[in-house]
Amino acid sequence: MGDHRLLLVILTQFILAFISQASRCSTNEVPIVRNIRELPQNDYGRPGLSHTTVAGSLVHGFKEVEVWLQTFAPGSGTPIHRHSCEEVFVVLKGSGTLYLASNSHSKYPGTPQEFPMFANSTVHVPVNDVHQVRNTNSGEDLQVLVIISRPPVKVFTYDDWSMPHTAARLKFPYYWDERCYETLSEKDEL
Amino acid sequence: MGDHRLLLVILTQFILAFISQASRCSTNEVPIVRNIRELPQNDYGRPGLSHTTVAGSLVHGFKEVEVWLQTFAPGSGTPIHRHSCEEVFVVLKGSGTLYLASNSHSKYPGTPQEFPMFANSTVHVPVNDVHQVRNTNSGEDLQVLVIISRPPVKVFTYDDWSMPHTAARLKFPYYWDERCYETLSEKDEL
Repeated sequence: MGDHRLLLVILTQFILAFISQASRCSTNEVPIVRNIRELPQNDYGRPGLSHTTVAGSLVHGFKEVEVWLQTFAPGSGTPIHRHSCEEVFVVLKGSGTLYLASNSHSKYPGTPQEFPMFANSTVHVPVNDVHQVRNTNSGEDLQVLVIISRPPVKVFTYDDWSMPHTAARLKFPYYWDERCYETLSEKDEL
Repeated sequence: MGDHRLLLVILTQFILAFISQASRCSTNEVPIVRNIRELPQNDYGRPGLSHTTVAGSLVHGFKEVEVWLQTFAPGSGTPIHRHSCEEVFVVLKGSGTLYLASNSHSKYPGTPQEFPMFANSTVHVPVNDVHQVRNTNSGEDLQVLVIISRPPVKVFTYDDWSMPHTAARLKFPYYWDERCYETLSEKDEL
């Protein structure tokens, strides 16, 4: 009888975990209004980052735009990377720096230009330009809304600014898309 | 001599007006970082509205996304309308109501569903669904960031919820795109 109860508990937990995972990646029945504070928030293994997918492709079924809310603790930032989509930042709080290597015809990004980002500023990254955002303000978190086109994002990362474009590594699915991408892949095999 | 001076003043003003208009609609040389508070802000003839194009198609040359900052005074709102693009709202301040008539197969929108919008919520409008946003909170402004795909926006407006879809009127270019659309059209004729 004890064994049966244990089995029942395990089975219930398995079903709850499945429902929970499905609801985080469902492209159906996404509520029209959602409280951003109640959406999943995680650092996805990147110290200093807090990422929330406000409106996502794999997570919520958007096809043309994706919106993220990201907070970077002082000293933290994005990898050096590029992607073939439009990207717009709206800085909600704090300040930081955009490092941007214009899309030239050289074989590697080269020394980037530095652009200060500040609260109530908007920043855009030209399609395919190699860039990095960092919270370079030691006193305060940097909080941004990020808007991208052509989701889910396909990111090529660089170790440094002198790494050849051809050596940049594709990171797909990106950190916050991994769970849903796996779920969708499993669905495709049914 | 007085006449010459007057002519010079008029000529200078003409040139300055031309430069100012060009810089508001230029798709070249858009600065990477822009102070949202310094961007043009206007009600475009709609009482209670304050609209700023944060990142625009006709204004700044974006091709796939467009971002607006809009503030609605108590009682004000958008027309009843639809558009064939994705739309995501992020509510920054205040509260209001989204009226949404799901895209059914009836000949007119019909009585809309009401969804409360509140600070730190995100709201999306399914492609082509007829909708209206109103600040239904008498005490406070409603401020939203609006993200759309497929810019510039092509809007069909309705007088009321029982107006047939086939009678909805195309408003293109939309209020804030008019000036730049005219400028671009003039350029095309050169």
